[in-house]
Amino acid sequence: MGSPNRATRVRRHPERGRYERGEIDAVFDAALISHVGFDDARPFVIPMIHARVGDTLYLHRSPGSRLLRRLEQGVDMCVTATLVDGLVLARSQFHHSLNYRSAVVLGRGRLVADDGEKRLALRAIVDHVLPGRGDDSREPSPKELLATKVLAVPIDEASAKVRTGPPIDDEDDLGLPFWSGVVPLTTTRGQPDPVDPDVPIPDYVRRLVS
Amino acid sequence: MGSPNRATRVRRHPERGRYERGEIDAVFDAALISHVGFDDARPFVIPMIHARVGDTLYLHRSPGSRLLRRLEQGVDMCVTATLVDGLVLARSQFHHSLNYRSAVVLGRGRLVADDGEKRLALRAIVDHVLPGRGDDSREPSPKELLATKVLAVPIDEASAKVRTGPPIDDEDDLGLPFWSGVVPLTTTRGQPDPVDPDVPIPDYVRRLVS
Repeated sequence: MGSPNRATRVRRHPERGRYERGEIDAVFDAALISHVGFDDARPFVIPMIHARVGDTLYLHRSPGSRLLRRLEQGVDMCVTATLVDGLVLARSQFHHSLNYRSAVVLGRGRLVADDGEKRLALRAIVDHVLPGRGDDSREPSPKELLATKVLAVPIDEASAKVRTGPPIDDEDDLGLPFWSGVVPLTTTRGQPDPVDPDVPIPDYVRRLVS
Repeated sequence: MGSPNRATRVRRHPERGRYERGEIDAVFDAALISHVGFDDARPFVIPMIHARVGDTLYLHRSPGSRLLRRLEQGVDMCVTATLVDGLVLARSQFHHSLNYRSAVVLGRGRLVADDGEKRLALRAIVDHVLPGRGDDSREPSPKELLATKVLAVPIDEASAKVRTGPPIDDEDDLGLPFWSGVVPLTTTRGQPDPVDPDVPIPDYVRRLVS
C-alpha cells in the first residue's frame, strides 16, 4: 500500500487522494454500509453492511442472491464507502462541493468456506453495526450459518479520497453578496425503540443516543 | 414502470420490493448522493451527487474523469441511492438488519450536449443539495459550463427496496434475555460555518439546522 496503481489513483483533485492504510481503514470503520459493485452482464451496485478485520473486508449475503450466484464463477468487485460530512456552499455554483470521506477497494471476492472464519466475520459485522452487540445476542445456529454466505475481499488495491474545509471561490467572486460557508452533516442516533419495554436498555445501546 | 424485469426485480425479501415511480423518486429526492457503478475493464463504484428532474437523473463530472472518458464509448450504469433509517437489533444475530430505503436505476448514460439542458441539470443539482441555493449563488460562466460534463440517466428500469419496523425474531428466540428493538438514525445539519461572518445567514440555510 502507499502507492496507487492505474485503477486506484485519484485523478480528479489528486490532492484529495489518500493511500495510507490507516486512512483507508478509518473510512470503512466509520461507515455503516458500503456500496458494492459487480458485473452480471451489466453493472450492479448493492448496499451492504461490511466489517473490516485486519486486511480483509467481510460482506454477507444469502445464498440465492445475484451477487453470490455470480461469485461462484469468480467475480471482480468494487467496494465503496462514503461519509458525507458537510455541504460546501461557495459563492459560485461551480465551486459548490461536499466535504466527505470515501474509500474504494477493488478486488476479487473470495467465498469463505471455513466455518470458523465465517463465524468470526459474522460476529465482526454485528459488532461493526453496534460495538458490544456480539456479546449480547444469540450466535448463529449451524442451520443459520448454512443459510448465510460470507465474502472476503482483501484490502490491497485501495484508495481513499477526502475533502475538508471551507469553499474555495475564485478571487473574482470574493466580492459577490452571496452567503458562503459549510453546513456540517452528522448521523445521529435517536431514542431506542424496544420490542419489550420491560427489558432494560443495555449501556452499549444507551451510549449511542446522540 | 410498476412491473419489474429480470434485472430490477427484488429477489431477496421480495416483500420489500417497490416498483411504483413515486416510491423510487422519493428515495432519490431524499438521498443527497448516489453510488454510481460502471464497468471499465473492471467494476467501479463512485459516489456522486444526483438530481432528479421528472423522469431523468442528472449527474455531473469533470471531462477528464474515468466515467466520462468511458462514457464517450457509451456505457451501462447503475445508480443506487440508499438511506439508512435505523439499526434493527434482533435477539438472534441472524435476524439483525437495518431499516433502509434504497433505489436502483439501471440504464445507459447520455452525455447532455444542449447548453440549456445542461444549465437546468446543474441548477437542479445545486437545488437538490440545498433547496433555494440556485437563486442565491453565481450561475456557471460559459467557461465553467465547458469544464463540466452532465450525464442524463432515464428512470425507466428501476426499483426500490424498503425495510421498516421492528426486528422479527423466530418464535423460539422470543424468551431470550437480550434487549431487542430499533435504534433510529437520522442525518442532522449542524450550525452553519460561514466564510465571512459579516454576511447574514439566509433563511434557507438557517432552516436546515436540525
